[in-house]
Amino acid sequence: MFKIEVPGRELDDAISTKINLKTKPLGALGALEKTAHTICTIQHTLTPEIRNAAVVVCAADHGVVAEGVSPYPQDVTWQMVMNFVGGGAAINVFARQHNLSLMVVDAGVNYDFAPETPIVHSKIRKSTRNFAKEPAMTSVETRKALEAGAEIIAKLHSEGCNTVIFGEMGIGNTTSATALFCKLSGITPGEATGAGTGLDSKGIAHKSQVIEKALKKYEAVTDPVEILSTLGGLEIAMIAGGMLKAASCGMLILVDGFIVTSALAAAHAINKNVLEYCIFTHQSDEQGHKLMLDFLKAEPLLKIGMRLGEGTGAAVAYPLILSAVKFMNEMSSFEEAGVDNKD
Amino acid sequence: MFKIEVPGRELDDAISTKINLKTKPLGALGALEKTAHTICTIQHTLTPEIRNAAVVVCAADHGVVAEGVSPYPQDVTWQMVMNFVGGGAAINVFARQHNLSLMVVDAGVNYDFAPETPIVHSKIRKSTRNFAKEPAMTSVETRKALEAGAEIIAKLHSEGCNTVIFGEMGIGNTTSATALFCKLSGITPGEATGAGTGLDSKGIAHKSQVIEKALKKYEAVTDPVEILSTLGGLEIAMIAGGMLKAASCGMLILVDGFIVTSALAAAHAINKNVLEYCIFTHQSDEQGHKLMLDFLKAEPLLKIGMRLGEGTGAAVAYPLILSAVKFMNEMSSFEEAGVDNKD
Repeated sequence: MFKIEVPGRELDDAISTKINLKTKPLGALGALEKTAHTICTIQHTLTPEIRNAAVVVCAADHGVVAEGVSPYPQDVTWQMVMNFVGGGAAINVFARQHNLSLMVVDAGVNYDFAPETPIVHSKIRKSTRNFAKEPAMTSVETRKALEAGAEIIAKLHSEGCNTVIFGEMGIGNTTSATALFCKLSGITPGEATGAGTGLDSKGIAHKSQVIEKALKKYEAVTDPVEILSTLGGLEIAMIAGGMLKAASCGMLILVDGFIVTSALAAAHAINKNVLEYCIFTHQSDEQGHKLMLDFLKAEPLLKIGMRLGEGTGAAVAYPLILSAVKFMNEMSSFEEAGVDNKD
Repeated sequence: MFKIEVPGRELDDAISTKINLKTKPLGALGALEKTAHTICTIQHTLTPEIRNAAVVVCAADHGVVAEGVSPYPQDVTWQMVMNFVGGGAAINVFARQHNLSLMVVDAGVNYDFAPETPIVHSKIRKSTRNFAKEPAMTSVETRKALEAGAEIIAKLHSEGCNTVIFGEMGIGNTTSATALFCKLSGITPGEATGAGTGLDSKGIAHKSQVIEKALKKYEAVTDPVEILSTLGGLEIAMIAGGMLKAASCGMLILVDGFIVTSALAAAHAINKNVLEYCIFTHQSDEQGHKLMLDFLKAEPLLKIGMRLGEGTGAAVAYPLILSAVKFMNEMSSFEEAGVDNKD
């Protein structure tokens, strides 16, 4: 479905040497050095570059909210889409701060947006089905969502974008994301289920039970695309498709929090090479995100207790990615600066 | 010497309410919310503002290098000052990235800079004395350094700057900083001494012994300014003076890593209210910085293994501070955006 090449490591030594000869003690830029190395490897260069970085926020509704798994009403999904359009949401603020272009995608919101609403109209259907009762999506719907995500990225790439942040909005989507992650990792809902937008402990226990029952119901499903179909959601599938396409185009993927990482886990189950193009920007405060990151052997840059979604963690971390690129390109070597090196 | 008012807490509830009514789950912006709250408190406003943020890098040499406590030659201090002037050091890259003005101060470099060198010429003396043998500075020199730091900040403040990052450069200065911190906190050199710019374990053990002997030698000294005099350094004293002045002007201080935090520990011993104006931007990988932060009951934003100095940790974290200010000013409330809140 998506061919993704593992980036060559021929430049490994040259990249390390360039980093180590900068006017600083060895390793003194910490995770920024590792980040620079990763970007250089993906871009196969010693002079990396972030071009036309974009945030793609995919929104969709979730049938599983009928089980009472979120303290917010489903209407908040479309209302937040309109908040994105109006420029007042957190992701708007951070995208403006960092000159990131922002694209809002209706992947499956349970609402009729006026055609002139400046969003990408890619509604696959209005909300997923309730996966506690039946599969969230049909295989056809899931593949449509994967392809729609891929198309969005193909267009961005053709316009010169080489770096993408995925974000999401969807009341109920931590339930879908947790179920998906548990299914893919074997980790139990008891361990992975968290408060989402703000459940109390009773609410979390109930959410965990809903997920546990669903996992039992769909125990026989093993194909990654079928797993996505059964547990949803439409925005998660669209992001997974977008990630696979981004990796196949050699783009850098800046991975946000819990929901987006669940999409990556799904993408990874489809093609594990997608991980080679990822930088993990932050560890969400949502219970289970650390487990996801461990499962993917990922080390996030930020751990500042964010759990908002929308791509905000990645957007807030974006300047650190730029710092990594900039020190690589702009900082002098000991020789260039006439500074004595150790011994 | 410096009168520092504790910011009033009258706006506490109003600040919390404004944060909590933004279109996001409660607390979902994590440490950014706490940061926004701190800045609002310092500035006594619900619409905080960062104005003309500046980086002040103070450089000086350390007589204690005669004890063999650094793997780099002392000449690196002046060479790095020239690297700052040339724009090729890490702090230049990050200051440019974030539009931070950068001021380089000769607090006591063991070198004659040409008068036309575009730095602040505030040399108190060429290098401190070797504190293993005698006090690093006289009381008069220490007070001159404190005052010079205060003057630099007074000027910046008069020009409209309300946010400052201090940085430092000085071969040997982790030794001075560690000694100072141990003296002020009671923590032992065995716990607090680290690799600095890259000592091996034998080097660290030697450095720790040098510090331990000095602490014994100056056991009777208890006055904070005298402690600064005995253990140095000139850049540390200048930063401490600058911090005290910044706090007395109601400015926001973005605290960098190990050396700068030792200067803060000294400033704190002179007037504990200085802490009310500080945001701790990162935890350095230098052994002992976590101990310092714990001693000051500080929670840093970033933990990304940086240990470069120059103010780089604070500069890299600067956009997160801006993100905190921007969400406070630009993000819509539930009511403004027409989004339903939880129940």
